[in-house]
Amino acid sequence: MDEFELIDRIFRRLADRKPWVEVGIGDDGAVLEVTPGKKSVVVMDTLVNGTHFLDSQPADSVGHRALAVNLSDIAAMGATPRWATLSLTIPKLERDWLSGFANGFFKLARKYQVALVGGDTTAGPLTVSVTVGGEVEPGCVMRRSGARPGDLVLLSGKIGGAATALTSPQAYADPLLRTALLYPQPPVDLGQALGLFAHSAIDLSDGLLADLGHVLKASGNRGAQIESDRVPLFEASSTLLGSSRALELALGGGDDYELCFTVPGDRYQKVVDIGNQLGRDIFCIGRVTEQGGCQIKGEQVNLKELSPGYQHAWPA
Amino acid sequence: MDEFELIDRIFRRLADRKPWVEVGIGDDGAVLEVTPGKKSVVVMDTLVNGTHFLDSQPADSVGHRALAVNLSDIAAMGATPRWATLSLTIPKLERDWLSGFANGFFKLARKYQVALVGGDTTAGPLTVSVTVGGEVEPGCVMRRSGARPGDLVLLSGKIGGAATALTSPQAYADPLLRTALLYPQPPVDLGQALGLFAHSAIDLSDGLLADLGHVLKASGNRGAQIESDRVPLFEASSTLLGSSRALELALGGGDDYELCFTVPGDRYQKVVDIGNQLGRDIFCIGRVTEQGGCQIKGEQVNLKELSPGYQHAWPA
Repeated sequence: MDEFELIDRIFRRLADRKPWVEVGIGDDGAVLEVTPGKKSVVVMDTLVNGTHFLDSQPADSVGHRALAVNLSDIAAMGATPRWATLSLTIPKLERDWLSGFANGFFKLARKYQVALVGGDTTAGPLTVSVTVGGEVEPGCVMRRSGARPGDLVLLSGKIGGAATALTSPQAYADPLLRTALLYPQPPVDLGQALGLFAHSAIDLSDGLLADLGHVLKASGNRGAQIESDRVPLFEASSTLLGSSRALELALGGGDDYELCFTVPGDRYQKVVDIGNQLGRDIFCIGRVTEQGGCQIKGEQVNLKELSPGYQHAWPA
Repeated sequence: MDEFELIDRIFRRLADRKPWVEVGIGDDGAVLEVTPGKKSVVVMDTLVNGTHFLDSQPADSVGHRALAVNLSDIAAMGATPRWATLSLTIPKLERDWLSGFANGFFKLARKYQVALVGGDTTAGPLTVSVTVGGEVEPGCVMRRSGARPGDLVLLSGKIGGAATALTSPQAYADPLLRTALLYPQPPVDLGQALGLFAHSAIDLSDGLLADLGHVLKASGNRGAQIESDRVPLFEASSTLLGSSRALELALGGGDDYELCFTVPGDRYQKVVDIGNQLGRDIFCIGRVTEQGGCQIKGEQVNLKELSPGYQHAWPA
């Protein structure tokens, strides 16, 4: 079986057509409609075997996460996802793996009406690169740079679960922790609804402190005071590790794919109501300050031992 | 040096801002303007070390080609490129290599006003994945599927040079052949101009016979008669290999990144004039027929020995 047949048989069959797709898979490029008056949003993220996932990880989880990490970025921009392109580099043709991968990818794609419109399949070390495009009302773009002193710092869900799942076989066996790691559910619906209310937003991929740090820096070197007992943890994480270690993983662990966003205090109740309508709990964990870095109040955590977030560090 | 500094220092510095880029590198996603009334075009291609390029290849050539292979697809759709996202997976941080890569990428990007707006840098086996977006007038989209019996089959330039460069050190040392392999110049300007005239188009990446085959199949299983003595060869290719072998590489070699397109006979002169204005020779190599596959008339070529185009074949 050659490359073209592979693409045809597996991906073209599963690729839903949407009204905004004029030309999809199978030509040199995709042709897409953008709703008049809206702006286009584009994100791209890559997962590398051995760095972002392991051989032992279920194939459908790899497919799910390859799309999920991008939908998380789309959500953080306040956009509605529309299309994706997929570049899949695989060492050899394993029908079962590909089929599992495709199932994970398309199940999530259908949930949010994302059309796969093109990409590339090549031979080489297992690597998955996905680009997702969406659109957004001009006034609803959420940037990292909009946080203002006095803003509340909110989270779209519990954090630290994925990092906890990696700490032991026992943790990995916990259904909620395992799901947080293998099948994160980025708050796409919430992101679309927040654009009118949030001053700033970022998706949590590198760990709360690292990602909130990006927001504070981009917003003019602001600071934040985070109340540690308000950081929403997974119950299983606290039970297994103790609350102090669970908190450390929540602050520094990464792979959460929840939103961290800031809103002025008088919009807090409105945002909680929106969350309720969408079945999502919104957690207020602190405030943006004029300056002074990010301070953690409350339970003692060893900040020095915190991972500085998920970074790929090379020898300089 | 960590990932974020790497991205900041090398790529952000070189990324030109364009009027259509509202948010570029440095947020969760890029925000882009689409010209009212135009359609959006998206392409994605990946280069893997060891498959699509070699360790010995100059870094600026890898950067150039990573963008060029995508611009070639954009050209084949009749679109104008606007933005790119780049996912770069590298085993270790080699400043000289990265700098060379960036120089090759941005030199070509500037030539066609393509803004780098985002992407991803990860640790892993050397792989470069690029997505390019552009826009096109609704009536100017070129598809693979539009070829009609009687259409002339045209090429935007000489072919077989890249494949010849790989045949021997002597061939690789020839400046024109080497340039064809390392720094292909996709006809972006010509692609934009052809949309009103061509019935169909494809970019030549897998070899003329394979790619023309895609057009004929997509156009309702049409055939074509190609006159072998009209296929435009590199002089150095014929000199080094003899005209018969040079022709075989032109028909089956791949990596040309020229356009193959079909036009009705009465538009031929207009297309040649457009080519002249853009400094590009247009070559007519045959005609589309009702059916009968792709026939090569003239010089005897051993079709069985032709590579079936560039495909990544896995064990089934």
